[in-house]
Amino acid sequence: MMKAVVLLSGGLDSTTTLAIARQEGFECFALTIDYKQRHRAEIDAALRIAQTLNASQHRILDVDLSTFGGSALTDPRFEVPTTSTPGIPVTYVPARNTIMLALALAWAETLRAQDIFIGANAIDYSGYPDCRPEYIGAFENMANLATKSALEGRKFRIHAPLIDLSKAEIILRGVSLGVDFSATVSCYQATPEGMGCGRCDACRLRKAGFTTCGVPDPTRYVAPC
Amino acid sequence: MMKAVVLLSGGLDSTTTLAIARQEGFECFALTIDYKQRHRAEIDAALRIAQTLNASQHRILDVDLSTFGGSALTDPRFEVPTTSTPGIPVTYVPARNTIMLALALAWAETLRAQDIFIGANAIDYSGYPDCRPEYIGAFENMANLATKSALEGRKFRIHAPLIDLSKAEIILRGVSLGVDFSATVSCYQATPEGMGCGRCDACRLRKAGFTTCGVPDPTRYVAPC
Repeated sequence: MMKAVVLLSGGLDSTTTLAIARQEGFECFALTIDYKQRHRAEIDAALRIAQTLNASQHRILDVDLSTFGGSALTDPRFEVPTTSTPGIPVTYVPARNTIMLALALAWAETLRAQDIFIGANAIDYSGYPDCRPEYIGAFENMANLATKSALEGRKFRIHAPLIDLSKAEIILRGVSLGVDFSATVSCYQATPEGMGCGRCDACRLRKAGFTTCGVPDPTRYVAPC
Repeated sequence: MMKAVVLLSGGLDSTTTLAIARQEGFECFALTIDYKQRHRAEIDAALRIAQTLNASQHRILDVDLSTFGGSALTDPRFEVPTTSTPGIPVTYVPARNTIMLALALAWAETLRAQDIFIGANAIDYSGYPDCRPEYIGAFENMANLATKSALEGRKFRIHAPLIDLSKAEIILRGVSLGVDFSATVSCYQATPEGMGCGRCDACRLRKAGFTTCGVPDPTRYVAPC
């Protein structure tokens, strides 16, 4: 079996991505980055999901991005917005996907894996620049100049299988693969039990996705979306 | 003053790079990544150097790459080689510069800095792929697709001012800028007091650089090079 490193946050998108990587026949090594986001509920979710979806290994690595701050997810001085505003919202975490993909690359090279999966999505998203296909392509190009593996002919492929799907399509894909979405946590400020606030961008995109595709939303929300 | 994030390992190259960034008129924010390398002596060196060279701020961030291993610097099962061998040596740390530059990018974006300095060198080096100019260019290109800052027109520049200098030229440049090389630690397996082993690649390249340029080597070595 080919090995793949799969970035797993514990949310709806990364969980579906892990299910897709498995379906494509990869032996999956799940990687969760605890970057000191606002809550641990998604890390707890990632732990359960990696087990349920039979990841060969699951590593949780601490990288304390609150050292830098600059985002509502890593700096308590910013509040998570509960209404949609034009432009990239304050929940954007500088260089987050670059840091996560860099760490996935390190693990992949160590494992002699050439495939890395990330649940980035550029349709029903918050406009984060590091979720766009041109970014994913540029990272792959850089990774293939950065590494001993690539120099020796074992090039890396960065897979972003959700990149051009709507949230509804992602949910339908997950359902078809048997994903239990009640185990996933998308909310930026979930309760310790993993309940969504029902008001942040992540909750609203998630809720709208379930509504659009007609799948019952198993998420427990503190406030109705 | 323009702000710059400078990656500072505590070695000869990154210290000279910090001195160059200062000379170029930047307000410098030094960033050291404690990736659980074999010794802390270079972290202690970085602490002293950031102070001496008047960095505005100095952050030390833990990223435990021994989680992945795969290198003589992060995995105790590998020994540091004491003879030169063809190819990229086992001291290569998968994706190290990519991880470090990604973290520097995160801090730079938070600071609204557009300049990042790294002491990568592709002349007197161990053949690490992430020290070559084509890699640095690919990282810069990726960074300018990854970030909100770049989307808004504030593009990043990755400076690698040592990239095509010999070790002797780097030393002469450092001397001209008043760098005290006795404070720097290059050795892969330095003693807690910062003495070089005198046998690893890093010690041999350093020693040869001082010999070539005729500057007295202030380094204390356990074994004569």
